[in-house]
Amino acid sequence: MIARSPLAPARFPSLPPIAGLRLACGEAGIKYKDRADVLLVAFDRPAAVAGVLTKSATASAAIAWCRKALTGGQAAALLVNAGNANAFTGAAGVESVTLSVEAVCRALGAEENRVFVASTGVIGEPLPDKKVTDCVGRLAGELAAPNWQAAAEAIMTTDTFPKGAARSATIDGQEVRICGIAKGSGMIAPDMATMLSFVFTDADLPPGVLRALLERGAERSFNATTVDGDTSTSDTLLLFATGAAGNAPVTDWKDGRLKAFAAALDEVLIDLAQQVVRDGEGASKFITIDVSEAASARAAKRIALAIANSPLVKTAIAGEDANWGRIVMAVGKAGERADRDRLSISIGGVEVARNGQRVPDYDEAPVAAHMKGQEIDIAVGVGIGRGRARVWTCDLTHGYISINADYRS
Amino acid sequence: MIARSPLAPARFPSLPPIAGLRLACGEAGIKYKDRADVLLVAFDRPAAVAGVLTKSATASAAIAWCRKALTGGQAAALLVNAGNANAFTGAAGVESVTLSVEAVCRALGAEENRVFVASTGVIGEPLPDKKVTDCVGRLAGELAAPNWQAAAEAIMTTDTFPKGAARSATIDGQEVRICGIAKGSGMIAPDMATMLSFVFTDADLPPGVLRALLERGAERSFNATTVDGDTSTSDTLLLFATGAAGNAPVTDWKDGRLKAFAAALDEVLIDLAQQVVRDGEGASKFITIDVSEAASARAAKRIALAIANSPLVKTAIAGEDANWGRIVMAVGKAGERADRDRLSISIGGVEVARNGQRVPDYDEAPVAAHMKGQEIDIAVGVGIGRGRARVWTCDLTHGYISINADYRS
Repeated sequence: MIARSPLAPARFPSLPPIAGLRLACGEAGIKYKDRADVLLVAFDRPAAVAGVLTKSATASAAIAWCRKALTGGQAAALLVNAGNANAFTGAAGVESVTLSVEAVCRALGAEENRVFVASTGVIGEPLPDKKVTDCVGRLAGELAAPNWQAAAEAIMTTDTFPKGAARSATIDGQEVRICGIAKGSGMIAPDMATMLSFVFTDADLPPGVLRALLERGAERSFNATTVDGDTSTSDTLLLFATGAAGNAPVTDWKDGRLKAFAAALDEVLIDLAQQVVRDGEGASKFITIDVSEAASARAAKRIALAIANSPLVKTAIAGEDANWGRIVMAVGKAGERADRDRLSISIGGVEVARNGQRVPDYDEAPVAAHMKGQEIDIAVGVGIGRGRARVWTCDLTHGYISINADYRS
Repeated sequence: MIARSPLAPARFPSLPPIAGLRLACGEAGIKYKDRADVLLVAFDRPAAVAGVLTKSATASAAIAWCRKALTGGQAAALLVNAGNANAFTGAAGVESVTLSVEAVCRALGAEENRVFVASTGVIGEPLPDKKVTDCVGRLAGELAAPNWQAAAEAIMTTDTFPKGAARSATIDGQEVRICGIAKGSGMIAPDMATMLSFVFTDADLPPGVLRALLERGAERSFNATTVDGDTSTSDTLLLFATGAAGNAPVTDWKDGRLKAFAAALDEVLIDLAQQVVRDGEGASKFITIDVSEAASARAAKRIALAIANSPLVKTAIAGEDANWGRIVMAVGKAGERADRDRLSISIGGVEVARNGQRVPDYDEAPVAAHMKGQEIDIAVGVGIGRGRARVWTCDLTHGYISINADYRS
């Protein structure tokens, strides 16, 4: 049993119901005992849906199914299981997806191309789909107003705490709600992570608007986080809009009336993404990395991720060592332009290096004090242009090795 | 004190002298106590020289110096120090290089643009160049036939054993020798590593031929290894040819008379590169990864490195867990074409997966036995084309975390 992350929030946040959907969780016994491992969400009327899926070349059968279903833009139901990723399972894996979708259709009277599925857990083991489909039949009779914490717990694998976030906003004067849950703690990297996240809103927005907002939001949230640089076969982020709030129709994502909604959505996505990092395997520090003065925002992000993924930077932070030379190294290896002789580095707001060398009379004391905290801030200027980016990661500790090497999967 | 790597060779190999060069090692006391930390090599007559240097955007002052000196193609001397990388030291770092080069010129009567320098150790600390220049004066009086082991020990930092390799070959009937030393154990990745390697031959070959052979050889050796994916600011591989063997002149690197020499050079480079991996920080397993059926050799190498750098793959191997699902994940994230449904994986020569799924009646016993050994072989076919590549790496253990987080640098 892995201890709860020291970076976990004190409690699961309070999430309101979303009108137009019901859900149920149940125990299929796929891998875990005595806990829910299946989540079924049903929409009263077809919800608009958009998604961001893993770019892995070895993506799972569920990913292929969702990619196709997303072209329709309508969702009747979502089925998620934990404990088995149904990835690298060949034709049997495709068959398992088909059987699961058919079970949902039978139970809810839904159309196949409006059913979304996601699986997370072990790769390469056949999914015991009978357990899942049996469970679906039971869950269809138990659908109710959402218990979001139970839903977040049902999709956990190596997570040490359930992850949820909510915000509200107005669209043209009508209040709308956004609630999201997520799971993930290892195999976390852009793009994206062994990461499942499902976000629900009662806003009435068409799939095209959802897609535009979600893709932009994902870039600033889930695609700006990394735990170990390993991208999973199953990463899934889906946004469902029930339309129950009855706001005025908006058909252009750039419409000014969506500004507050877009900001609230971004906040939910960033909140969830940060929780995933805070549950990073073995994490003891939450690290924010800001890169500025890069040739472009893209270059800045690549440099920030090079720092965030560097085992030497991550282990130095685990050791509470303000080893900024390793940050210099990581900037250098990123493959983007950086002016060595204009490079600047701050740690915890204290300037450590400027113009390509240590600041004169560098006093390590305040930096060392910052390194002892749980929240580490690193800012790097690379002296080229005006590109900026922010990414989040965690440190690399003995805990990561223990979880991934000492415990057999 | 870090224990000698369990993957270290039993002893330092026997390396013959190379006619046309002398060397000396001494204690400058830059960082370490009671051990040599400076190496001076002097060539009787100017040697032909070629080099491969780090591609880091934050390369050290010594790298910049060597890059310029290499354009001349002639070497009179090589000066190396351990304990301080003289990297990210701004104008003071450039000045330290100039002072060091001047000291060598004074002591040996050499021309400035024929002096090569390399520094390895802490980044961002000013180099105590007076200690180095004082040492140079003493060493110039102690030059002698090479004690290769002493030379390899003088350039060590976190290395747990000195690294050397030698081969001989004939060029047009004349026997020639190749001797090389190397250091490196962390911050090891293409391109290239906190890695210094100096290779010496008595062959008579022009700089252009040396460069062509060295660049090709580096691609198959040092640039096919990784410990932690972190590229250093100081990586330096230099090849010096004294010409003392007096072989017939050869001016084209494709000349058939160089075939044996090129093969011997490759062997020296691969031997040294593998020793660096075997000294990878915390390494307990030496891992060979072969990727085939990729779209190109370059694609194959990128996939192989994605596997080699995956923390989840490396920790699974540390845990002696044949978790091939993580290999599937790493193939998927490499950013190169792979056919999920034709993917095959062998571990220790035993086929584990074929056509995108686990082989029928998979027997884990022989694979589990292989995982318990010190030499792990992974072969992956990605079902696209005919591109092949081989890379070497080590596992990721508690030892890596201890060395990089628990001990303060």
